[in-house]
Amino acid sequence: MAEPGRTAPTQTMSTRRMEALSDGVFSIAMTLLVLEIAIPPGSQDLLHDFLHHWPAYLAYVVSFATIGGVWLAHNVITEFLTQAVPTLIRLNLILLMFVAFLPFPTRLLAEYLENVNQERVAATIYGTTLFTTNILVAVLWRYAASRQLIGTAGDDPDIKLFSRRLTPALGGYVVLIVVGLFFPLIAVFGYLLVAVNLLIPIRRHR
Amino acid sequence: MAEPGRTAPTQTMSTRRMEALSDGVFSIAMTLLVLEIAIPPGSQDLLHDFLHHWPAYLAYVVSFATIGGVWLAHNVITEFLTQAVPTLIRLNLILLMFVAFLPFPTRLLAEYLENVNQERVAATIYGTTLFTTNILVAVLWRYAASRQLIGTAGDDPDIKLFSRRLTPALGGYVVLIVVGLFFPLIAVFGYLLVAVNLLIPIRRHR
Amino acid sequence: MAEPGRTAPTQTMSTRRMEALSDGVFSIAMTLLVLEIAIPPGSQDLLHDFLHHWPAYLAYVVSFATIGGVWLAHNVITEFLTQAVPTLIRLNLILLMFVAFLPFPTRLLAEYLENVNQERVAATIYGTTLFTTNILVAVLWRYAASRQLIGTAGDDPDIKLFSRRLTPALGGYVVLIVVGLFFPLIAVFGYLLVAVNLLIPIRRHR
Amino acid sequence: MAEPGRTAPTQTMSTRRMEALSDGVFSIAMTLLVLEIAIPPGSQDLLHDFLHHWPAYLAYVVSFATIGGVWLAHNVITEFLTQAVPTLIRLNLILLMFVAFLPFPTRLLAEYLENVNQERVAATIYGTTLFTTNILVAVLWRYAASRQLIGTAGDDPDIKLFSRRLTPALGGYVVLIVVGLFFPLIAVFGYLLVAVNLLIPIRRHR
Repeated sequence: MAEPGRTAPTQTMSTRRMEALSDGVFSIAMTLLVLEIAIPPGSQDLLHDFLHHWPAYLAYVVSFATIGGVWLAHNVITEFLTQAVPTLIRLNLILLMFVAFLPFPTRLLAEYLENVNQERVAATIYGTTLFTTNILVAVLWRYAASRQLIGTAGDDPDIKLFSRRLTPALGGYVVLIVVGLFFPLIAVFGYLLVAVNLLIPIRRHR
Repeated sequence: MAEPGRTAPTQTMSTRRMEALSDGVFSIAMTLLVLEIAIPPGSQDLLHDFLHHWPAYLAYVVSFATIGGVWLAHNVITEFLTQAVPTLIRLNLILLMFVAFLPFPTRLLAEYLENVNQERVAATIYGTTLFTTNILVAVLWRYAASRQLIGTAGDDPDIKLFSRRLTPALGGYVVLIVVGLFFPLIAVFGYLLVAVNLLIPIRRHR
Repeated sequence: MAEPGRTAPTQTMSTRRMEALSDGVFSIAMTLLVLEIAIPPGSQDLLHDFLHHWPAYLAYVVSFATIGGVWLAHNVITEFLTQAVPTLIRLNLILLMFVAFLPFPTRLLAEYLENVNQERVAATIYGTTLFTTNILVAVLWRYAASRQLIGTAGDDPDIKLFSRRLTPALGGYVVLIVVGLFFPLIAVFGYLLVAVNLLIPIRRHR
Repeated sequence: MAEPGRTAPTQTMSTRRMEALSDGVFSIAMTLLVLEIAIPPGSQDLLHDFLHHWPAYLAYVVSFATIGGVWLAHNVITEFLTQAVPTLIRLNLILLMFVAFLPFPTRLLAEYLENVNQERVAATIYGTTLFTTNILVAVLWRYAASRQLIGTAGDDPDIKLFSRRLTPALGGYVVLIVVGLFFPLIAVFGYLLVAVNLLIPIRRHR
């Protein structure tokens, strides 16, 4: 157990399968979102019904962009990871549990965003899920950084940039959840903005 | 066929694709669980309906944690695997058949846990599926160990710890299935406990 | 284009992504099968309804075993593959199109196997899909063998065994499709038998 | 950051996970298409209902072939990729967003192709999605080519062939969207033709 020979491949393998499971969950959650878009069968005016389903397309884009952003952050974290220690694997499973959950609040948003009485509730549930997911990304990142699992990557300008961006994004979610209690639609566009901001190229390349 | 040169990559390839298929099934089964959570459309009080769907969220968390635990155990087993022999590949397919089946009893539990007359049946079907799945993990492990497919890993303290934990977990499932005949909800929390216990870091790291 | 340096990694990469896409489709098709099992909501006697859904479980097991068998055959074929030529990639896509289609006839079988008037139709549609899928496995294999894409593997006893088993399996499907016109349930058990037979360890290990 | 040692594996890893996510989305989108094929339960004449569902099978084949073609093009692009720069990763996410969306217009086409009043709308939505998806493939390709991310591959005859084929395919989509306003069914067969044409072996092998 102490010989480095066995330890090294074991760790590498863990990271590989953690990434395989994660990429699986990310890609499936992304693709399942489309199942939430459903025009009731037997439409008499398909063009009208198609256009009036815009909250579903908006919810699809926001959720897709958010999962894309989380995937990218996950990518950055695991890229610098030198060891996949047990706690990290569990934290990662909890993160995946929220990513896989996202299609459910997305469906609520798609269905109730036009509904004056229920849209506040839908937007709050949606925003809280996005916020929790990003909190877990931050926890994963802080844990990896604090345990020195990411080598000398802490000095990397990309990593510094990523660190600097995550905290304002979390703040943004808190503000938008409150905004959503009064103006749900504005909050949803805000969620899109936060996701797109996290997606903007982190690393300026050489 | 006898030259070691060709044999080695062949075996490695089999393990790789067995892992790829398994990680695929694990991640899809995890993510499909969310489709079982459905608030009937046209809710007049979304907050009330959302909160009253707690059995669906509980079922989601328990099933996600269980699949996570099975994935982790699978990970430990294949990490030490030096050969993917045919019988193991078939045992693995049977295990995956039960993992992929899990969303169905999860849906039953989500729907009937509030229902006084049917919840006993739902909890029993659910518990039996969890029990069978973990039995298959144990069979896979015993088979790999008995055929010396896991090299010297049998002396590894992690592996000993994993072996020691699996048997009580199986016992726990039997007890909880019986408990579920009388107190279904307590049994479901018990299943969560067993899953979380199997998820607690197996390997104390260096 | 002629330098071996560039050619080699290109080919390897193609094979790798062909395998990644295939393993994705195999594992998703396997896991989507569970969505076809659905007890109508609001059951008044869940135990009774659960037990009376046996055709759905039978259809699930037969389809899962069939996809498992096709995956295994696919595995054997690509293991010996030295080149992923364009025609093979297209044949593979056609095979995947039928594998991905299988959940649909599985649902028909699950729903209509108890229905005296419709079960013959459901069993025929199901059997024809299984037959076509296995025909495509055979075509893929013959093509790879005829183009010498599998190196000296043709002399391998495993490969000979695999070749010998595939033709009787195809014959079995033809017989069972005819049987299914009169005795649908017997045909379905026959399909299970063929799938299990294809799953029985192909390679006796050293 | 400047030492080539760290840069190289980082880039490779990014490409690997971009491919893993992409292959995940491609294979799931392909397999989810089957969920759009649904014969209403309780059919009294299953053979009749099965045969009259031909628009659903046609839509399945066209969408499967289109995703297959996009996957193949994606494969060709990433095969020659020497670096996965940030902008490319984002362009790829946008492409995946449209690939994952395709099951929705496929369902509309499957349901409304027989419907004289609505089929024009369904065919236009469908065609526009196919067109946009292929535009994004072209953008991805042009971007990679313009930034010299594909090494000397620009001189490769395969790549030249691929480049030459993509533009007429885009033109074909524009023509077919217009055709679909008058003859929706002819447009759908046209979409199949374009997809099959893109699937025809790009590389004549050595």
